[in-house]
Amino acid sequence: MKSLVKHHAGPGFQLADVPVPSIRDNEVLIRVRRAGVCGTDVHIYEWDDWARGRCKPPFVVGHEFAGDVAEVGKLVTDVAVGDRVTAEGHIVCGRCLPCRTGNSHVCPNTRIIGVDRDGCFAEYIAMPALNVWHLDDSISFDIGGIHDPMGNAFHTALTAEIPGSVVLITGCGPIGIFAVGICKAAGASRIIASDVNDRRLALAKTMGAHDAVHPDQVEAAVQRATNGMGVDVVLEMSGIPAAIHQAFAMVRLGGRVQMLGIPAKPMDVNFANEVIFKGITIYGVIGRRMYDTWHQMTRFLLSGEFDPTPVITHRFPLEGFEDAMRVIKSGEAGKVIFEIA
Amino acid sequence: MKSLVKHHAGPGFQLADVPVPSIRDNEVLIRVRRAGVCGTDVHIYEWDDWARGRCKPPFVVGHEFAGDVAEVGKLVTDVAVGDRVTAEGHIVCGRCLPCRTGNSHVCPNTRIIGVDRDGCFAEYIAMPALNVWHLDDSISFDIGGIHDPMGNAFHTALTAEIPGSVVLITGCGPIGIFAVGICKAAGASRIIASDVNDRRLALAKTMGAHDAVHPDQVEAAVQRATNGMGVDVVLEMSGIPAAIHQAFAMVRLGGRVQMLGIPAKPMDVNFANEVIFKGITIYGVIGRRMYDTWHQMTRFLLSGEFDPTPVITHRFPLEGFEDAMRVIKSGEAGKVIFEIA
Amino acid sequence: MKSLVKHHAGPGFQLADVPVPSIRDNEVLIRVRRAGVCGTDVHIYEWDDWARGRCKPPFVVGHEFAGDVAEVGKLVTDVAVGDRVTAEGHIVCGRCLPCRTGNSHVCPNTRIIGVDRDGCFAEYIAMPALNVWHLDDSISFDIGGIHDPMGNAFHTALTAEIPGSVVLITGCGPIGIFAVGICKAAGASRIIASDVNDRRLALAKTMGAHDAVHPDQVEAAVQRATNGMGVDVVLEMSGIPAAIHQAFAMVRLGGRVQMLGIPAKPMDVNFANEVIFKGITIYGVIGRRMYDTWHQMTRFLLSGEFDPTPVITHRFPLEGFEDAMRVIKSGEAGKVIFEIA
Amino acid sequence: MKSLVKHHAGPGFQLADVPVPSIRDNEVLIRVRRAGVCGTDVHIYEWDDWARGRCKPPFVVGHEFAGDVAEVGKLVTDVAVGDRVTAEGHIVCGRCLPCRTGNSHVCPNTRIIGVDRDGCFAEYIAMPALNVWHLDDSISFDIGGIHDPMGNAFHTALTAEIPGSVVLITGCGPIGIFAVGICKAAGASRIIASDVNDRRLALAKTMGAHDAVHPDQVEAAVQRATNGMGVDVVLEMSGIPAAIHQAFAMVRLGGRVQMLGIPAKPMDVNFANEVIFKGITIYGVIGRRMYDTWHQMTRFLLSGEFDPTPVITHRFPLEGFEDAMRVIKSGEAGKVIFEIA
Repeated sequence: MKSLVKHHAGPGFQLADVPVPSIRDNEVLIRVRRAGVCGTDVHIYEWDDWARGRCKPPFVVGHEFAGDVAEVGKLVTDVAVGDRVTAEGHIVCGRCLPCRTGNSHVCPNTRIIGVDRDGCFAEYIAMPALNVWHLDDSISFDIGGIHDPMGNAFHTALTAEIPGSVVLITGCGPIGIFAVGICKAAGASRIIASDVNDRRLALAKTMGAHDAVHPDQVEAAVQRATNGMGVDVVLEMSGIPAAIHQAFAMVRLGGRVQMLGIPAKPMDVNFANEVIFKGITIYGVIGRRMYDTWHQMTRFLLSGEFDPTPVITHRFPLEGFEDAMRVIKSGEAGKVIFEIA
Repeated sequence: MKSLVKHHAGPGFQLADVPVPSIRDNEVLIRVRRAGVCGTDVHIYEWDDWARGRCKPPFVVGHEFAGDVAEVGKLVTDVAVGDRVTAEGHIVCGRCLPCRTGNSHVCPNTRIIGVDRDGCFAEYIAMPALNVWHLDDSISFDIGGIHDPMGNAFHTALTAEIPGSVVLITGCGPIGIFAVGICKAAGASRIIASDVNDRRLALAKTMGAHDAVHPDQVEAAVQRATNGMGVDVVLEMSGIPAAIHQAFAMVRLGGRVQMLGIPAKPMDVNFANEVIFKGITIYGVIGRRMYDTWHQMTRFLLSGEFDPTPVITHRFPLEGFEDAMRVIKSGEAGKVIFEIA
Repeated sequence: MKSLVKHHAGPGFQLADVPVPSIRDNEVLIRVRRAGVCGTDVHIYEWDDWARGRCKPPFVVGHEFAGDVAEVGKLVTDVAVGDRVTAEGHIVCGRCLPCRTGNSHVCPNTRIIGVDRDGCFAEYIAMPALNVWHLDDSISFDIGGIHDPMGNAFHTALTAEIPGSVVLITGCGPIGIFAVGICKAAGASRIIASDVNDRRLALAKTMGAHDAVHPDQVEAAVQRATNGMGVDVVLEMSGIPAAIHQAFAMVRLGGRVQMLGIPAKPMDVNFANEVIFKGITIYGVIGRRMYDTWHQMTRFLLSGEFDPTPVITHRFPLEGFEDAMRVIKSGEAGKVIFEIA
Repeated sequence: MKSLVKHHAGPGFQLADVPVPSIRDNEVLIRVRRAGVCGTDVHIYEWDDWARGRCKPPFVVGHEFAGDVAEVGKLVTDVAVGDRVTAEGHIVCGRCLPCRTGNSHVCPNTRIIGVDRDGCFAEYIAMPALNVWHLDDSISFDIGGIHDPMGNAFHTALTAEIPGSVVLITGCGPIGIFAVGICKAAGASRIIASDVNDRRLALAKTMGAHDAVHPDQVEAAVQRATNGMGVDVVLEMSGIPAAIHQAFAMVRLGGRVQMLGIPAKPMDVNFANEVIFKGITIYGVIGRRMYDTWHQMTRFLLSGEFDPTPVITHRFPLEGFEDAMRVIKSGEAGKVIFEIA
C-alpha cells in the first residue's frame, strides 16, 4: 500500500510502498480516508531534538485519521466491517493505576501511532478495537479525520468552567481555533483570542471570538471585558514564553490556566507573583480524556452547536506532503488534511 | 405610598397606603419600578398551610423587583442615589458558618422580603446595601425585576454540568423556561422540556428547547435523544410527584437530578430502584448562590447569549393584582410583572 | 469440587459437588481460601421478592472472596499461578459509556458473581483477569475475603469530604462498622454511629466511633457535637425508613447524605423540608468505583491506619452455612466468613 | 503600650511605647497574650526588596496572635469583652467579586496587619469584628497565637485529596511541620517530609512523618513508597528552586502540586516535561480560605486528632526580639512565639 514513511534518522519523509498491516485478534484494519497533519508530524519531518530522542525509524507517520473498517480480529465484537470510524491514537496499557481509574490519558505505558508504532498516513492502519470510535452517518470523514486535535481542544476547554466565563485563548493554531468554537458553544460570555497571524485571527473570528487580536492588544481587550479584574480562564495554546507570561498576567486572582502549548525549552517563571500570590490553578493538558472527551465531542458535533468545518483550510494527496509541511510551517494555515481514498 | 399588603390571616391582599419605609445606616431606599409576581405570592394570597405556618400579617408582599436608589444610609459606600439596581431578597446574617464559607444561600437565619418582612409590591422598599445588585445601563427594569427567579434557574442549571449534556427540564413555569434558555446558552447538546400546558411549551420552544412535549411523550423523546441510555441531567421544576418519578426514571445511571420544584406534600419514593441502584446524585436547590449566581446571571445577560424577554407575558399595575393572581393560577402565563412607576 | 448451590427456585441452599469451572482465554481460575457472607446471600437463601425477580437457579452462591491463582488463560499477562488475590465481583462490559469514562460501577451490563453467574462459595471460581486485584503479602486471606463489603464502605465514605467533618453513620452492620474505621483514619473530627444492637455498637466503638448510640439518642449526640447545626455528612447504612428520615433531619443545611442501605420498599419522603429547603446533596452508592476504591482500600490497609480485623466475628466451614445464615439474621454478628481451604 | 515597631526604612525593629489603638464602631480591641513570629517578620526586619516595595514605616509589626477582648465597638454584636480570640490577619473589602463569592483569600483589596497597618507585636491591637475567631476554652493562647501559619498549612493540605494519598512535603519550617500533622490526621497513607536541617526533620517525625529525609534521599523514599509511580500530592513549603523541581519530578502523572513556599526570584521551568506531559495540576496557595480553613482548623484541634504543641520550640518576651530573629534565621527553630501578657 501507499504510505508516508519516516525512513531514516534525519530530516524528511519518503513516499513508499509498504505491506498492508496484519491485525491481531483484538485489532481491526481500517481503510484510511482522511488524515490530519499535525505540528508533531512537522517535528518528526524536521527531525528535531524531541523527535531524535523519541522516534525509531523506519515507521509510517501520522496519528489523526478517519476511515472505514476493512477487517476485524476474531475477538472483536463491537466493530464490524464497513463501520465508519476514527480512533484514539494513544494506545494505553489498560492495567496501570491511571488506566484502571479513568485516567488513561496519563498511562505511563502509552504508545502513540505515527510516533511509537506505524501511523495513519497510509491506505490502511491496524488499531486495537478498544481505540476505535464510531462516526455517526452525519459526520464526514473530513471531520472524523481531525477528531484527535479537536479532542485536545475539548479536553483543554471543558476541564475548565466555561459557561459565563471570560476566556482568553493564546494561540490560534488549529487547536486554538477549535477551542474558540467550543467555548462559544459552551456559553463563554466573552472570548478573546490572540495570535500574530491575521489569517488565523480571521478564522478565530469566524468560529466565534468576540475579540481576535494581536498579543500586544490582549491587555486592552481584557481590561475592557473585565473592568481590569482579569479573565476567569486562559487556554494557553501557543507554547510561546511571552504568551505564557501573558496568561499568568491576564488571569484573574483565583482563576485557571490550562496549558496545552508546548514550550520548546525551559523558561523563567516568577512563581511568587505569577502563581502563588494570585492563588491560581494550572492544569497541564495531555491528549484526550478516554473517553469522556470523545463523548463530549460527539455530542457537540451531533447537536450542531459546534462546526469545525471552517478550520480546514488545505487539502493534499499524500503525494503533496512537502506542500503540507510548508503551509503548516508558514503559520498561515488552519487545519491541513490528507485526502487518501 | 401605594402598596399591596397581606392585611390579615386569611385569603386575599389589600391595596393600601402605608408610610414610606425609613432606612437604617447600612440600608438603602429603592424606588420600585418593576416587580415580578411569583407562585409564592399566590400561596400567601391563598393563605395555604405553608403561608399560615410562616407569615405574620400585616406586611407588604413581593420579593422580586428592580428600581433606582432614592436614599442611602450613612454607612453605605458602594451604592449611590440614582443607581439602577435589583436586590437579593434573602437577607442573611453574615456571621453563621454557611455565611462565612460562601454558602449564605443556606443561612439558617435568612429573612425573606415579602415573606418575613416588608416586600417590594410598593412604591419604595428598604434593603441592606449588601443585598443590592447593580444593573448595567443595558439591562431594562423589566429584566431587572425578574432577577430573583432567573437566579433560581441559573443556580439550578449551572450547578450541574451542562456543556455537551442532554438535559430534561420537567415543568415549564417561568423558572423552567428560563432554565431552557440558560442550558441552550451553556451548550446543552439537547434540551427536552415538558409541561401539560401548550402555551408554556411554545415558550420553551422559543427559548431553545429541542423537544417541548407533554409528560407522556418524555420517555420517547429521551429514548430518541440518548438511545435509551437516559439523560445526563434533570432539572425538576414542577414539584409534581409524577414528574419527580419521571426524573428518576429518565436520568441515566450515574446522572444528576436538580430539585427546585416544591412538592405540596410527602410522596412515595423507591430509594432502592430510583436512587441507589442508579448511582445518581440529587441536589436540593434553594435560592441563589450569593453572589456567584448573580455574577453568572449578569455575565449571561451582558453577553447577549441569554435573553429572557419572551418569558414576560403579562403586565399589570399594582391595582390589577387580582388579575395577576388569576393568570398565574391559570397555568397559561409565563412571567407576570407589576409596572409600578 | 465442594460448593454451596442455590439449587431451586425456593428457600435454602444445598451443599453440592460440582465440576471445577473451566476458564476462558481471558480468565483465571482461583482456589478460594476465604469467602465473606453478605446480606445479599441471605436474600437469595430466603428467596425473597428481589431474589425471585433476579436470580436463575441453579448457580453457585457467594461474591466476596480471596484465594490463590490455580490456572490462567492464555491471553492473561498480569496474573500468574500462585498469586494471592481477591476480585471485584461486578463483571462489567468495558464498552458502554460508563465503562469508557471511568464509571464502570454503573455499567448497565453488569453481571455479578453469585447472583447472575457462578460465585465463590466453592473450592474454585473462574474470574476475568481484569477483575483480579492482587493482595500484598502482608494482607491475610481473611481480610482479602472481605474486600468487597469494605469497598462499599470506602466508596460511601470517601466520595464525601471526611477530614474535619462530623459524620453520622446510621446502621452498624459490617459495612457501617468498616465505615467507622475509615472515617476515623480519614480525619473525621467526630463520628456518631447508631444501631439498635449493643454488640454492633460495641464494635463501632472499637473501630473508633466517638459516640455509638441507639437511634433515639442520635439527636442529642448531634446536638452536642455540632451545637445544633447538624452533621456535615451522613452515611446511611441501614435502609431503615426511620434512619433515612433521621439522616435528612440530622444533616446540616448544605450537607451531604450518602445512601447505601437498601430500603425494602417505597417510603414517604417530604422532599420540600427534607431535601430542597435544606439544600443538601444525596448520593446513591452502588458497588465500588473501579478501581479507585480498590486502590484506596489497599493504601489504607498497607499503611496500617485501617484494620478491619475486629469486624470479623464468626467463621464457619462451608458445611456450616445454616449457622452462618442464622447468626447474620440475628443482627448480632459483625462480618461472617467461610473458611474454605 | 509596649510594642515592636518598624520605625524606619532600613534594617531592624525598635521596642517602643505607643498609644493604645482606638477602635471604630465595627472593631474590637484585643489584649495580646501570645504572638507568633513569621518569616515575613524577618523580611521586614532585614528590609529586603519585598519589604522595601510593600511597607511604609512606621508601623507595629506582627500578624499572628491570640488574646482576650478588652473593648468592642458599638456596632459589634458577636464579640464580647473577655472573649478569648484569635483573628484572621487579612482584612478584606467584603464587596469585590472574590469576597462576594466565598473567595476572600484573593480579595485584591486585602490589607494585612503588621504589613499594611499596625500589627500584633504589642500589648493591644484593634481588629474588625468580622476577622475575629473565637477560641474554645480548651485551646491555649499558645496555640491560638499560631492559628495564622497553621491555617496556611490547613489550606495547603486540605485543598488536595489527602485520605489514602502518598504525600511529599518539601520544606519542614513550621508550616511544613504543621502540614505533616494535618496529613497524618487526615489519613495520608504515607508522608515523606524533606529538609536540610536535622532538628526540623526530627520535628516532622514527631508530628507523624513516615520518612523524614534530606532532599537527596527523597527520590529513594518515593520509589519505595510508590513503586516508582510517584506521589499523589506534593505540598511545596520551601520556595527553594531545587525543591520545586523535585516536586514536579516526584509527583505522579495526573497528580497535584500545592505551592506555598515563595521563591525569592524567577527560576527556570521546563513546562513541557515538568507540567504538561505529566498532566498535573498546580495550585497557588495564598492565606487561608475565609473561613472554611478556620472552621476545619478548629475541628481538627477540638477533636484532638491534631496537636501542634511540639512545633513551638522557642519563646521570648517582646524584649527578646533580636534573639527571635536570630533563631529563625538559623533554620534550627520550629515555631517561635512572643509571650506578651
